[in-house]
Amino acid sequence: MQTLRVELGERSYPIHIGAGLLDDAGLIAPLLRSNRVAVVTNVTVAPLYFERFAAGLSQRGIQSLQIALPDGEAYKNWETLNSIYERLLEARCDRQTALIALGGGVVGDIAGFAAATFQRGVPFIQVPTTLLAQVDASVGGKTAINHPRGKNMIGAFYQPLAVLADTDTLASLPGRELRAGLAEVIKHGLIRDAGLFEWLEANLERLLAREPAALAHAVFRCCQIKAEVVAADERETGERALLNFGHTFGHAIENAMGYGVWLHGEAVAAGMVLAAELSRRLGRLPAADAQRVAGIIARAGLPTSVEGIPAQQFAALMGVDKKALAGNIRFIVLDRLGAASICGDVPAAVLSATLATNAARRGRAN
Amino acid sequence: MQTLRVELGERSYPIHIGAGLLDDAGLIAPLLRSNRVAVVTNVTVAPLYFERFAAGLSQRGIQSLQIALPDGEAYKNWETLNSIYERLLEARCDRQTALIALGGGVVGDIAGFAAATFQRGVPFIQVPTTLLAQVDASVGGKTAINHPRGKNMIGAFYQPLAVLADTDTLASLPGRELRAGLAEVIKHGLIRDAGLFEWLEANLERLLAREPAALAHAVFRCCQIKAEVVAADERETGERALLNFGHTFGHAIENAMGYGVWLHGEAVAAGMVLAAELSRRLGRLPAADAQRVAGIIARAGLPTSVEGIPAQQFAALMGVDKKALAGNIRFIVLDRLGAASICGDVPAAVLSATLATNAARRGRAN
Repeated sequence: MQTLRVELGERSYPIHIGAGLLDDAGLIAPLLRSNRVAVVTNVTVAPLYFERFAAGLSQRGIQSLQIALPDGEAYKNWETLNSIYERLLEARCDRQTALIALGGGVVGDIAGFAAATFQRGVPFIQVPTTLLAQVDASVGGKTAINHPRGKNMIGAFYQPLAVLADTDTLASLPGRELRAGLAEVIKHGLIRDAGLFEWLEANLERLLAREPAALAHAVFRCCQIKAEVVAADERETGERALLNFGHTFGHAIENAMGYGVWLHGEAVAAGMVLAAELSRRLGRLPAADAQRVAGIIARAGLPTSVEGIPAQQFAALMGVDKKALAGNIRFIVLDRLGAASICGDVPAAVLSATLATNAARRGRAN
Repeated sequence: MQTLRVELGERSYPIHIGAGLLDDAGLIAPLLRSNRVAVVTNVTVAPLYFERFAAGLSQRGIQSLQIALPDGEAYKNWETLNSIYERLLEARCDRQTALIALGGGVVGDIAGFAAATFQRGVPFIQVPTTLLAQVDASVGGKTAINHPRGKNMIGAFYQPLAVLADTDTLASLPGRELRAGLAEVIKHGLIRDAGLFEWLEANLERLLAREPAALAHAVFRCCQIKAEVVAADERETGERALLNFGHTFGHAIENAMGYGVWLHGEAVAAGMVLAAELSRRLGRLPAADAQRVAGIIARAGLPTSVEGIPAQQFAALMGVDKKALAGNIRFIVLDRLGAASICGDVPAAVLSATLATNAARRGRAN
């Protein structure tokens, strides 16, 4: 097991990474103020891991209330959140009852927001079981639900007491979700660590084959990068925005396709290809490097473009309307592989040309 | 104008108290990051103050989006909260748009929770227009909505950037609401300041007659007391619980009568009489002092008892069921006028006897 610490003053917390942590209730028990916890999970993850996880806690005299949500981004909404409140109130949970998120990014986001808002905040622990959640969603305290008018529109910054990333759980992950998680791993390399990016180019097949040592290395390094960024800018007033590389395009893709049709990581993958292309057209990134971005994403089995979104709709979904300049959105661009920055003045023509390459790339691919 | 500061480290903020502050946009403008604000108010307060308030901001080039909620505790729920999100999203408000609460405690609670959760938190400013909100609800960062299963069950601690308490707005306050606010004023004296309590006994008629100087004094002293308590214990892990004096009984009364039938301050008034009686029966408070508590509440035109709640239902609403001892609830009790403490081991028989006096008192009053 490796442990790193997210430094946020009185809100600092440890991230434990390793094999078999799901059984290690000793990492959780000392953090609790009550002999009961509520484990928020989903109907897919619960049959795989709930019993084992609860058994570890039970041995230490801690009872687990299971709250299994329907599975998928489409359920990250008010109705599901309210079903968590209902269960907590029905079971007479109080401000001492910790909420534990056992599952992927959706479970973590919604359970975290429930923890942030139930009785004005209860203790929260993350046990991410997908690659995406282990490298990204569980670090940094972002919690949210979606609103019909936009993704993650309702939420809070709320830090957990601890994160346990059990790399064994990645063995059972569907291939599509593993690949979606790799999109975020690649992102961490692109925005901040050329060495990680090169390591990924050299070791991608080991990750796709789920070699435990390779997965543990990727998770640890990504958490380390994200923890550094978050510690410097907890509430995303500056540097933390770099973590949104590929996400301005990606969120538009998710929205256009309907939430849950594309996985978040898939949309971010195609979004990163577009963001690299934008960086190239702005004269920041050499064409060869933009090619390397598209190349590793394709090798990871992730989409490098998206069909069926006309450029104008795409722009509108990113908040660019006919009257506005593209300059009213801040894009994250690459200055080189391993270094990103915020660009607030992208000319509308350059954005249009970039979106046109999506159509062209799509054309070539078909 | 008097100004005091709530000391909460990086979340510290000023409370300005005085006549005519509603027009003083100079207190607000320097805090804004955008030339637009969303003013959350209700249909009763908006016609009285919105135009004047917006005019002051407009002179400084700041546009006000009016969001007028239905009036009353019964609307402090998810549907109303969602209507705020809808309006903000429809108007394309972003993370820079400040939310300003213009109204009483309900408006402050729900607007504050909207500010805490819209896009994971936007700037928030309180402009309380009722006595209750000026002395209590606007200080301390508690925000919430009600859940069908309980009052204030969903919420967050979220501090405003500033509070503007314009004492002129109390002139238009319905008498019933003025009296409800006095309940919280009396509470502040009872739990922490015998001098304030004696001043209230001597000056109650001046407050009921709405003498500006008397009202300003009461608001200032209560905010000072609450600010001290909150600074020592922002998230209510200890001392802050003393502010709940009368509230364990009061919440049960509100719940039993149906939210919005009794005003919060009215329920707290009757609750304080019961809490003083409980303190007396526990041998902590002299009978004469318990009499003084009931006496000033009666003089303020507030209820000293409640009809129609059988003792057993009353106990159940406080979280005491047949199997549980009363000891599972922590009561705030008076050790003397001006000093309160937490009591976690009230014998069930003493609680029953206390609740019986409510019935008896009611009998005498009828």
